[in-house]
Amino acid sequence: MVNTEMNKVHFCAEDDIGMQMKTEGTNDRRQQALSAKSAETRQRILAAADDLMSETGIEAVQIRSVASRAGCSIGSVYKHFKDNDALIVAVNVLTLESLKAAMANVAKGVEEPIERLKALSHAYRHFAEDNTKAWQGLFSHHLPDGQGIPEEHLGLNVALLELIAGTLREINPHLSHEVLAARTRTCFAAIHGLVTISLEGRFVAVDDQSLASEMDFMVDRLSVAP
Amino acid sequence: MVNTEMNKVHFCAEDDIGMQMKTEGTNDRRQQALSAKSAETRQRILAAADDLMSETGIEAVQIRSVASRAGCSIGSVYKHFKDNDALIVAVNVLTLESLKAAMANVAKGVEEPIERLKALSHAYRHFAEDNTKAWQGLFSHHLPDGQGIPEEHLGLNVALLELIAGTLREINPHLSHEVLAARTRTCFAAIHGLVTISLEGRFVAVDDQSLASEMDFMVDRLSVAP
Repeated sequence: MVNTEMNKVHFCAEDDIGMQMKTEGTNDRRQQALSAKSAETRQRILAAADDLMSETGIEAVQIRSVASRAGCSIGSVYKHFKDNDALIVAVNVLTLESLKAAMANVAKGVEEPIERLKALSHAYRHFAEDNTKAWQGLFSHHLPDGQGIPEEHLGLNVALLELIAGTLREINPHLSHEVLAARTRTCFAAIHGLVTISLEGRFVAVDDQSLASEMDFMVDRLSVAP
Repeated sequence: MVNTEMNKVHFCAEDDIGMQMKTEGTNDRRQQALSAKSAETRQRILAAADDLMSETGIEAVQIRSVASRAGCSIGSVYKHFKDNDALIVAVNVLTLESLKAAMANVAKGVEEPIERLKALSHAYRHFAEDNTKAWQGLFSHHLPDGQGIPEEHLGLNVALLELIAGTLREINPHLSHEVLAARTRTCFAAIHGLVTISLEGRFVAVDDQSLASEMDFMVDRLSVAP
């Protein structure tokens, strides 16, 4: 479901197969062929993991099932991804890239900042509705203790929050950096809570008809600081 | 961790062992002894399931491990709980009872309605902090398709939401029943989102210092309808 085109940029940095070979003559061409094949394999593995995440959810993203789905060996998966967690992080990065693209896209078209925040929150809701399992994967993955969130993942989160923070800053130019940072997280968490509770069809869910208007009410009330 | 005293009321209704026996003379006394023993076994099983939920989380609440922890046979667990889901629902009912008691308790002491809502939201946060695994169990359990949420569970949720709705009604006596119902869910979901994101230590988490003041800001802004 999530656009796998976007991850192509990562290949060069992470793919080091052939790097230890001598870089001249025939070896040069062989190295290029190997690198291209390796990049293609990595992409196939990542696409398989992404499909499993989208179709079944985070519990389906397991080295063994990913290898089987991608039509490669388990060893081949381990060559590209250290472990299961690394595979899930890579899928989550794809999801975050798609989410950021979807939100940045709606933000571009809306001049008035409060309306832009509303558009951003509806884009978030629609992304969650259309990519439920992948979106849940973002919040249900817990890295082992002591393992920090990868730079790439962190950078995407900052970029996502910056979409909200930039708009809040327009509305409240007097807010200090600290309050703006807290308020950005508050607005995100409030909308996230409403979307989560509703999407999961909980007893406390806001029904479909009123969800959109409740989201707008929330943005109206939370975006302007006293 | 969750107070298991509270579940005692359920035993009589659900426990029917001995009911098929003849109800006279010695059999009467034997039936009473059996019922008491059965109730005691059910409570031991439930306490074991509750401990596993609190210590490890929902994935640890499995018939086999519960039986081993309670020191009884797997068959004995099945005699009291239809399946794993029934066991988790029973633990979640205990958790909801404790949560409701904690929230009702703080609400009692606060006269001013907006301050009461703030107290309710802080009680929710503290409950989640002190009983994280059990609280997560409330939201991570999904019954199989087509299986409705049990009456008891539903009733407790309504009672919890009624704590919020009653206070919102005091602040906004002009709101229609429908808007009040939606607003109650919105306020709950927003606070729940903030607590969830913060408790799980996500990159988007609001830090500890500002969490309490952001929660108050949220209540101030969302509790008064335009």
